[in-house]
Amino acid sequence: MVVELISVGTELLLGNIVNTNACYLSRKCAELGYDLYHEITVGDNEARLCEAIKTSLSRADVVILTGGLGPTKDDLTKEALAKVLNRNLVMDEESRKKIEDYFKFRYLNNPKHTVSDNNWKQALKIEDSIVVQNNNGTAPGYIVEHNSKVVILLPGPPNEMIPMFEESIVHYLQKKQKKVFFSVMVKICGIGESRAETDIMDLIEGQSNPTIAPYAKNGEVHFRITAAADSEDEAKRLINPLVEKLTRRFGNNIYTTDEQESLEEVLIKLLKKHNLTLSTAESCTGGLLAGRLVNVGGVSEVFGEGFVTYSNEAKMKYLHVKEETLKQFGAVSSQTASEMVIGAAQAAKANAALAITGIAGPDGGSSAKPVGLVYIAAYLNGSVTVNEYHLKGNRQNIREMSVIYAMDLLRRMILNQLQ
Amino acid sequence: MVVELISVGTELLLGNIVNTNACYLSRKCAELGYDLYHEITVGDNEARLCEAIKTSLSRADVVILTGGLGPTKDDLTKEALAKVLNRNLVMDEESRKKIEDYFKFRYLNNPKHTVSDNNWKQALKIEDSIVVQNNNGTAPGYIVEHNSKVVILLPGPPNEMIPMFEESIVHYLQKKQKKVFFSVMVKICGIGESRAETDIMDLIEGQSNPTIAPYAKNGEVHFRITAAADSEDEAKRLINPLVEKLTRRFGNNIYTTDEQESLEEVLIKLLKKHNLTLSTAESCTGGLLAGRLVNVGGVSEVFGEGFVTYSNEAKMKYLHVKEETLKQFGAVSSQTASEMVIGAAQAAKANAALAITGIAGPDGGSSAKPVGLVYIAAYLNGSVTVNEYHLKGNRQNIREMSVIYAMDLLRRMILNQLQ
Repeated sequence: MVVELISVGTELLLGNIVNTNACYLSRKCAELGYDLYHEITVGDNEARLCEAIKTSLSRADVVILTGGLGPTKDDLTKEALAKVLNRNLVMDEESRKKIEDYFKFRYLNNPKHTVSDNNWKQALKIEDSIVVQNNNGTAPGYIVEHNSKVVILLPGPPNEMIPMFEESIVHYLQKKQKKVFFSVMVKICGIGESRAETDIMDLIEGQSNPTIAPYAKNGEVHFRITAAADSEDEAKRLINPLVEKLTRRFGNNIYTTDEQESLEEVLIKLLKKHNLTLSTAESCTGGLLAGRLVNVGGVSEVFGEGFVTYSNEAKMKYLHVKEETLKQFGAVSSQTASEMVIGAAQAAKANAALAITGIAGPDGGSSAKPVGLVYIAAYLNGSVTVNEYHLKGNRQNIREMSVIYAMDLLRRMILNQLQ
Repeated sequence: MVVELISVGTELLLGNIVNTNACYLSRKCAELGYDLYHEITVGDNEARLCEAIKTSLSRADVVILTGGLGPTKDDLTKEALAKVLNRNLVMDEESRKKIEDYFKFRYLNNPKHTVSDNNWKQALKIEDSIVVQNNNGTAPGYIVEHNSKVVILLPGPPNEMIPMFEESIVHYLQKKQKKVFFSVMVKICGIGESRAETDIMDLIEGQSNPTIAPYAKNGEVHFRITAAADSEDEAKRLINPLVEKLTRRFGNNIYTTDEQESLEEVLIKLLKKHNLTLSTAESCTGGLLAGRLVNVGGVSEVFGEGFVTYSNEAKMKYLHVKEETLKQFGAVSSQTASEMVIGAAQAAKANAALAITGIAGPDGGSSAKPVGLVYIAAYLNGSVTVNEYHLKGNRQNIREMSVIYAMDLLRRMILNQLQ
């Protein structure tokens, strides 16, 4: 089965946004066993859009278009496809109702607000197409079957497109494909990509089915192990021995083999399992760590409060970091990190805590304490571990990696001390 | 002048890497005034590569290919282009010498090391082409003029491609282009995309030079205004009246017209201007607001501390929210938001503060207080404003939009009260 992707949007051609949709969909299609030979990006122009759709339909079994489904005059994807397939656009009552409800809810306190006319355009569907619900926006998606081919239309914003793809399209594409593809994601934190690859080079070189594909992320390395088989059970039987080999080699460096599970979820699960509560104290990350933990639903059982102590005064006032410590060793020091983490645990009466203090740049570095120097402290039932990190990248990278390494540090402490 | 981009690499089609090259080159070409209507991604396959080059050459004046110039058997871009143009590949002595020197330097301490044969492939150039030096790798780039058209070949790794583009290609493309292009970005917060477009539909419909292009972001709308002229001064003269019109219509909804400036930077600049200091109290956003503010370098002048008060206990302990308030109105209420923001300002002795409390979901909603209900409070020199929002999207969207609306609320309060 051959698939082709068409990304629609002048903002892509102007370089205003990076096309992460194409990357996401390419990876997903590869996982589903589809062959992808061409990706095209075109602007919001009907003639060129029609031409691109025709070209892709002549080469592929499935064509996925993203973007151009919104309410404005520039959004032409549906109109172009209708033209190419010679079909009409008809009002979809359910979509119309959803748009009405959306605006009713949104402007609850402003009954005078009216829905501007262009919004109703989003309720039109291509005749005889399947409407794909969008729970995060007003533009639905569509599956259009035409002779032996399929065209799938999805909105451009990734936060709308990805859930729709996962909830509706994956299943549809799976059914069209004869082989079953099954994969496991081995997620590793704490070792670099080249080192991780070197450690399993023999397995990577010997791969055929299952295959191993590495993905480097900021501070993490993921290996996707995929098998093709006649059934999911058989694919799992092919995968399991390889997963076991990786588990033996990487040990605690692996934080999960569940693709959907994030590092923060793993940490919060561990905290719950051991009846621990967590507090945070952040200087250079300024709340990013707490912000990421709170993205896990149900975090309130283990996390009640955190401190953003960017100034020295705040470090003393809330965390009782000693003035002498700050004077003698500086705010970015192992000693300050240690006092921060103890202070955070005590203030919140928590039995676990994390503290981060570092120089995220671009300014503030010196030869003794360069940009990228970060101290992370973890507290667990009275014992404290402080690690020193030398991180590379811009201000944002350094802060994001600090958050990841902090979560990983506490995860390892819990595994070592309590499991 | 029309340009087309062809990205070459199976790793792109497998979704192993995001195509940031296409975004970078698109932006650069737009800045240089080239029209880009199609971007194509193909794998390392000679037949498909030849077909893509032919298609692009039939439509564009300039075709830029990235990737596939390396030493391996998979790297076929140069070979495919030579075939399409019916030209020979010939040894380029300077490139040969550079490769020799590169390996000599690299394996200085291992004189037995020999350069593997496939590396010499990189010293072959297309007959009568201009070689573009690569100071960060071994694969040079090429400019190939063919009849009235130009094909530019650049290596795929961004750290090699970008310097080569800036050092050699920009100048080459500038010379080919007669007009100068200049653009301004009008960034708006607080009104939706379709509303914003409706408000200036007459201007969008009447556009020719300058042009207006809208971009919707999470919680924001941006309009790019671009003019083409014989000089930058003339382009600015064309743009200014339109920017003034937008400023009159959108007023304070516009937070900046500087493309590089973010909402957090604008807010922090305003705080500095009025000698204000800021504190934050976050429940459902759990530190994201503080985390985003701290991404601005030099924020320490205005922001010293923030509170992540996810639990009711923390709201009472640090922000002195009254137990009766929480009991009577709940943690997600206008009253709690108001007490939180006053508490945050007082604890930090700050004259400005922001507080966020809401239901980000997926659980925790009820018919009286549904998921997406968020209260944001802003405090400025003793006065408090609380707004109620009904936000759509998943947990992360709701939290991100809350952060944006919070910053915008305080920005507006400062503008209204102090300017």
